[in-house]
Amino acid sequence: MAMHELLEAAWRRADSTLCVGLDPDPSRFPSTVGGSVLDFCTAIVDATADLVCAFKPQIAYFSALGAEHELERVCAHIRDRHPGVVLILDAKRGDIGSTAEQYAREAFDRYGAHAVTVNPYMGGDTIEPFLRHPGGGVFVLCRTSNAGSGDFQSLDVGGEPLFERVARRVLEWNALGDCGLVVGATYPDELRRVRSLVGSLPLLVPGVGAQGGDIDATVAAGAAADGYGMVVNSSRAVLYASDGNGFAEAARAEAMRTRDALRAARR
Amino acid sequence: MAMHELLEAAWRRADSTLCVGLDPDPSRFPSTVGGSVLDFCTAIVDATADLVCAFKPQIAYFSALGAEHELERVCAHIRDRHPGVVLILDAKRGDIGSTAEQYAREAFDRYGAHAVTVNPYMGGDTIEPFLRHPGGGVFVLCRTSNAGSGDFQSLDVGGEPLFERVARRVLEWNALGDCGLVVGATYPDELRRVRSLVGSLPLLVPGVGAQGGDIDATVAAGAAADGYGMVVNSSRAVLYASDGNGFAEAARAEAMRTRDALRAARR
Repeated sequence: MAMHELLEAAWRRADSTLCVGLDPDPSRFPSTVGGSVLDFCTAIVDATADLVCAFKPQIAYFSALGAEHELERVCAHIRDRHPGVVLILDAKRGDIGSTAEQYAREAFDRYGAHAVTVNPYMGGDTIEPFLRHPGGGVFVLCRTSNAGSGDFQSLDVGGEPLFERVARRVLEWNALGDCGLVVGATYPDELRRVRSLVGSLPLLVPGVGAQGGDIDATVAAGAAADGYGMVVNSSRAVLYASDGNGFAEAARAEAMRTRDALRAARR
Repeated sequence: MAMHELLEAAWRRADSTLCVGLDPDPSRFPSTVGGSVLDFCTAIVDATADLVCAFKPQIAYFSALGAEHELERVCAHIRDRHPGVVLILDAKRGDIGSTAEQYAREAFDRYGAHAVTVNPYMGGDTIEPFLRHPGGGVFVLCRTSNAGSGDFQSLDVGGEPLFERVARRVLEWNALGDCGLVVGATYPDELRRVRSLVGSLPLLVPGVGAQGGDIDATVAAGAAADGYGMVVNSSRAVLYASDGNGFAEAARAEAMRTRDALRAARR
């Protein structure tokens, strides 16, 4: 099933636009998991799967640890135990076509992701290999959640900021395969502007939780006409809600609180 | 030693601006290496190390195969057996600060790279963690070698193309740590323009060899005042010069031919 259809089904199944990001940092694990990335991630996944539309492993946290094999197992666990939850590999890949094909194999064949985040700076021919791969879709960086995102993304290019030009180009690329955009919750005005440009295109929205984005403002600015249309990510606020024995229960409580706030905001 | 100093020493030691890119594709290996990424890469490295200033493993080729452990060993081999040759991890990373710190750990601590390629789209605060890490420097994507690189990189931003704005910002970031730029050999006019903006800043120049960039035009446009200043990468033309038993000798011959052409062009 294509990414768009999977997302539509996932939003409705759980009545949730929440995505839990998996950024495993062993220095913040509770002592009971003994530093195991796999045990920590699967505990979080199993405690929150019925509350989310998607999980988003951040590959950098695994790569820094040499834990690619654990990431393979976390991804397989999500797909096997929680079918219907969308698996987004957050890797922000971008390279020339022949190299992009290798990254598409990594995301879709090796990790079994339904979607991968990609960087548009190198141009459309570096996104195409992901779209031609039968495995999944892409979320293209548009206006990111960090403080410095305006350095280049907000530069005026012929009467519009660069991130709007990216959004319009991604609408064209969407004809080749499943596309979405990454727009940070920390910039609700820009989020509103992007939504007005792209209709119902899915938006991956990081920046609530530890990064401080406001949920009501995010939903008001970014929801599609049907109330869904967004994958709103929280990572650290959920993962590290408690560093004690009850970390999975605390993560579940924080995920439920965030899901409910997202629901309430759209009604 | 800092990246800039390592490069200066490497250029002079070998009197070479050639970098051999390591993009291992087992479907193109000679039958004698039995599909071993490690054996293939170390054979290429040992056959060409005295001819180059740098090696540049492209991590996508390793990641698609689940061969991160082999990449660790290739990197260790380069550092241990060929000290003085600069090790550039081609990974084109870019993410928010806390995640960029993980990518810096991956590149500098895990793989022991002297430099890593990074993507500027997300802004200066996503490059800083690499510069603050004591391990190495960065080559920031500026004007890339692919056909679609103009989609965004050439957009006019206040009277200059975006890639020139990136080049000027990277000069500022260079005050924080070792920076260079990636500029493709396939665009000599843009390469000349970047060189005129950045003085002696090191440029990583892919696109000769399989991608078709012209060596004379590249050197005329991109060399620094002292004749060096560039790391000119060739990957596939060297790696796959022959698919027979003599692949390492054929790779050496192709590397020598390219090094000599680069030398001749600057005299």
